[in-house]
Amino acid sequence: MTEEVKAREEVKTAEKEKMTIVVFSGELDKTIAAFIIATTGASMGMEVTMFFTFWGLNILKKNEGAAGGKGLMGKMMNLLNRGGSKRLKLSKFHMFGMGTGMMKQFMKNNRLPSIEEFIVMAKEMGVAMIPCSTSCGIMGLDKDSFRSDVELMAGAAYFLNEARQSKVSLFI
Amino acid sequence: MTEEVKAREEVKTAEKEKMTIVVFSGELDKTIAAFIIATTGASMGMEVTMFFTFWGLNILKKNEGAAGGKGLMGKMMNLLNRGGSKRLKLSKFHMFGMGTGMMKQFMKNNRLPSIEEFIVMAKEMGVAMIPCSTSCGIMGLDKDSFRSDVELMAGAAYFLNEARQSKVSLFI
Amino acid sequence: MTEEVKAREEVKTAEKEKMTIVVFSGELDKTIAAFIIATTGASMGMEVTMFFTFWGLNILKKNEGAAGGKGLMGKMMNLLNRGGSKRLKLSKFHMFGMGTGMMKQFMKNNRLPSIEEFIVMAKEMGVAMIPCSTSCGIMGLDKDSFRSDVELMAGAAYFLNEARQSKVSLFI
Repeated sequence: MTEEVKAREEVKTAEKEKMTIVVFSGELDKTIAAFIIATTGASMGMEVTMFFTFWGLNILKKNEGAAGGKGLMGKMMNLLNRGGSKRLKLSKFHMFGMGTGMMKQFMKNNRLPSIEEFIVMAKEMGVAMIPCSTSCGIMGLDKDSFRSDVELMAGAAYFLNEARQSKVSLFI
Repeated sequence: MTEEVKAREEVKTAEKEKMTIVVFSGELDKTIAAFIIATTGASMGMEVTMFFTFWGLNILKKNEGAAGGKGLMGKMMNLLNRGGSKRLKLSKFHMFGMGTGMMKQFMKNNRLPSIEEFIVMAKEMGVAMIPCSTSCGIMGLDKDSFRSDVELMAGAAYFLNEARQSKVSLFI
Repeated sequence: MTEEVKAREEVKTAEKEKMTIVVFSGELDKTIAAFIIATTGASMGMEVTMFFTFWGLNILKKNEGAAGGKGLMGKMMNLLNRGGSKRLKLSKFHMFGMGTGMMKQFMKNNRLPSIEEFIVMAKEMGVAMIPCSTSCGIMGLDKDSFRSDVELMAGAAYFLNEARQSKVSLFI
């Protein structure tokens, strides 16, 4: 763990650095990885932007209420692809919920936050969480589909401008 | 959308910057994401290289004619893994073509180009689209397997030299 | 191939540059891609760190002996998710082993190392291969689960400190 402490010290002494993460996949495991990296970066003093696109938009969808979606086709698609931070599944070994349930139990045992807690925590730490407006169109979504703490929506040009200024850019 | 315009302005005033994208997955959704990022970058004045590898090679395969592939095993593999910009499938909800068809309809409704149109557009904007010669060997492919507008093929060292000079490198 | 040689020359004359790769997926195809990029980078004189996390931890698990895992649930999970460099599967076309076997044959025909050989080779070339301690907890693993040539384990802060100093960072 001294390696970890050293790493944190090195970053804190550096000037404010940026990190940009594209969250493309809405799977539970990749979402955990994205939030661990994002919140660790923020705790090290980095300025972090998470850019949610395609299936990653599911993570920021409302947990309650209607499934959302524009038009009849949008509604159909979003009924199928329900979303919400509590409904994410593993990319492997989902096994009708057994594998996903086991992973959630492991997260608890290791005192790791749930995705819902990660979102709130990231928000408090100043991580910018932005739904990609371009893929909202493709996925039949609009602003009302998302949780109320989502403010800004932006497109690919906004993402690229952040990424080109970032020390670290990842596509997850 | 003013955020978008601002972002574009900031990049254009900067000197010519590079972006390198590894396109590993040949799935429709990830391919759309890769081309949106690549063409947006090019429209902002960036010098973009897309490096197609493994299943991503499917995107640049010929749409017509034989499936290609070297040797008997190569031919078998490429018959199974047919490829071509018009045959890509969603990573989820393909559902025997229904989900994939729905996504293509959404792309049309949102005036988003098809993958075929994206390839032509990217080419015109000066995006370099390069099949990875190393993975061509593994996938049993040669130059004849690809569309005629593919010129250069190159290996991992070429990619890394581009990536190390790039402001943004993504593995999609 | 002259392009390749030129690329290698350009990097060698540059000062020592870093590359950091997150290996999240434990699938055979993505693992091959990660090791081709890592060993090519090392052969070009780059200082390469591979950070294994989630399913990527499977790659560094022991090939022989017990499946490992802490506690009853950890043991159950790791029996299911056996791991070891020789047990990786393709992300597509696994087809009960037929597709995976075909890919391994293609690797041999193209004189590409197996994953087991890649690990030994990367080690000899000085590539740092580090299991992520945070995801070890989530996956129910500890140091004993890994091959004996694994030395250091580290968390997300260590990874981020490497990544922010790197010319190229990839999430595979």
